[in-house]
Amino acid sequence: MAILVVGSVAFDTIETPSGRAERCLGGAATHFSLAASYFTDVRVIAVVGEDFTPEHEAVLTRRGIDTRGIEHTKGKSFFWSGSYLKNLNEAQTLNTELNVFQSFSPRIPAEYEDSEYLFLANIDPVLQEEVRRKMPKVKMVCGDTMNYWINDHAENLARVLKGLDGLLINDGEAKLMAKDGNLVRAAEKILSSGPKSLIVKHGEYGATAFFSERSFPSNGRVLHLPFRAPALPLAEVVDPTGAGDSFAGGFFGYLASQKELTPANFKKAMFYGGVMGSFAVERFGTDRLAQLDPKEIEERFALFRELSHLD
Amino acid sequence: MAILVVGSVAFDTIETPSGRAERCLGGAATHFSLAASYFTDVRVIAVVGEDFTPEHEAVLTRRGIDTRGIEHTKGKSFFWSGSYLKNLNEAQTLNTELNVFQSFSPRIPAEYEDSEYLFLANIDPVLQEEVRRKMPKVKMVCGDTMNYWINDHAENLARVLKGLDGLLINDGEAKLMAKDGNLVRAAEKILSSGPKSLIVKHGEYGATAFFSERSFPSNGRVLHLPFRAPALPLAEVVDPTGAGDSFAGGFFGYLASQKELTPANFKKAMFYGGVMGSFAVERFGTDRLAQLDPKEIEERFALFRELSHLD
Repeated sequence: MAILVVGSVAFDTIETPSGRAERCLGGAATHFSLAASYFTDVRVIAVVGEDFTPEHEAVLTRRGIDTRGIEHTKGKSFFWSGSYLKNLNEAQTLNTELNVFQSFSPRIPAEYEDSEYLFLANIDPVLQEEVRRKMPKVKMVCGDTMNYWINDHAENLARVLKGLDGLLINDGEAKLMAKDGNLVRAAEKILSSGPKSLIVKHGEYGATAFFSERSFPSNGRVLHLPFRAPALPLAEVVDPTGAGDSFAGGFFGYLASQKELTPANFKKAMFYGGVMGSFAVERFGTDRLAQLDPKEIEERFALFRELSHLD
Repeated sequence: MAILVVGSVAFDTIETPSGRAERCLGGAATHFSLAASYFTDVRVIAVVGEDFTPEHEAVLTRRGIDTRGIEHTKGKSFFWSGSYLKNLNEAQTLNTELNVFQSFSPRIPAEYEDSEYLFLANIDPVLQEEVRRKMPKVKMVCGDTMNYWINDHAENLARVLKGLDGLLINDGEAKLMAKDGNLVRAAEKILSSGPKSLIVKHGEYGATAFFSERSFPSNGRVLHLPFRAPALPLAEVVDPTGAGDSFAGGFFGYLASQKELTPANFKKAMFYGGVMGSFAVERFGTDRLAQLDPKEIEERFALFRELSHLD
């Protein structure tokens, strides 16, 4: 079933110990869409400027991603530049230019209205809420956020959190949001504020899902215990940008491709999230994610299972 | 089959966000022995001072641990004090007094000579090598070390590494030892220097085992892929002291209890390592580890499996 994702489609200039990439296609919605496109139909809501060419759009459409919700407007696309030279686990932001995103007001094409899955990628929670409100019939809503919104837009963010089936953030964001350095206590606090599940991404150490007491996933069967999915130990992380968004795309894409939201499917979705994240970091920008063979995905899924399962 | 362990039996004064413990029984060999004692026979080589009373020794002997190799001498036992107030993942050492360990020369009682498993806990690599040399017939040798020996005693340590079947250290130690911030490359470098396997402990994120090309574990079946074992997300870590030694005790204790060193047993041993580490941190000092019910261990093992296995 189709996923609608709202978020940034942008250009990134990135430096890492492996090299430098100038103005490569990026943005949370881009990485998310590409990762999810291997599992289900994806529809994007975003805004881009005149620097976004048909060649850029083709990176998405070649993967069957519906880009009719990408609004083209005057000016320049969202631009971010960052460096991982000091720390591969955390980007040092060198420059952020909101550009066309500054006055973005999401419009949802009629063709998108039957989307059953909604992903609110990391953008202003006011925009996240607006899109959520316009899609009242969706079956499942997941979302992401970041330090900036947690620190300075807490009230707006709180309203978004209440409506989420799953919040996907990283360790630091979870601890910041809960103001508690212990992950289990932080998870409890966040879950009590709204989301039915919390997926905390640990970078090279994988991810952990925590579940609220309100019986999620549903279908009579419940996961009260947390669930841990591994990450693949990699000898070279070329570019970590978009790893979290790709995790979200693999996770949500797999869930949307399944008939039922069962605990077993939720667990497999966590593994697929890790799989897509592991591909994303192998090349700069979208280079790896844009041209995967589905067979590679299944092989890597098998690898993830092998590296963490008892015989 | 019996494990011989050489290492510190000591007193620790510890402060953590959960409280403070004065001069509680500690030391790498203590935590290791207690954890391993739930799986197999354990024999300890260490030195203690006059402050080590029969009550302290009884903590070990009540678990069936053979303490005939603990030498009693004049002076005070090894003493360490540390604080986890700033960071629960890394102790800030406030004081270290080697005391009787300063002039320790390990002697191996005749009754210990048939031990088939040898664990070289974190002590001076010169002493580790000495014990290793005196036990030429052991079936398997694992060991631990720390930053101090890696930085300032690298040549002595290098000789110990050559003879190890397994080296158990944490992330920071592995990266320091290899002078490489990427764990996979660090592991390759360390394995090329001697150990047949490297078990890297990630604290709250579990542990990863890496294997050399020289076919380990043996028995015809080989693990080339790394293996990741989870850790239990805990809402309160009362005292992290000894968590790594307890991991090593659970890991090596389980291996020593099995007839064969198979990949399947190695993987289960990694899980049991995590299980014993998770108990160790629930109370100060040895309080939790000294009085576990074997049923609790099996229940927690099942929990570890549930929190990381696909259905």
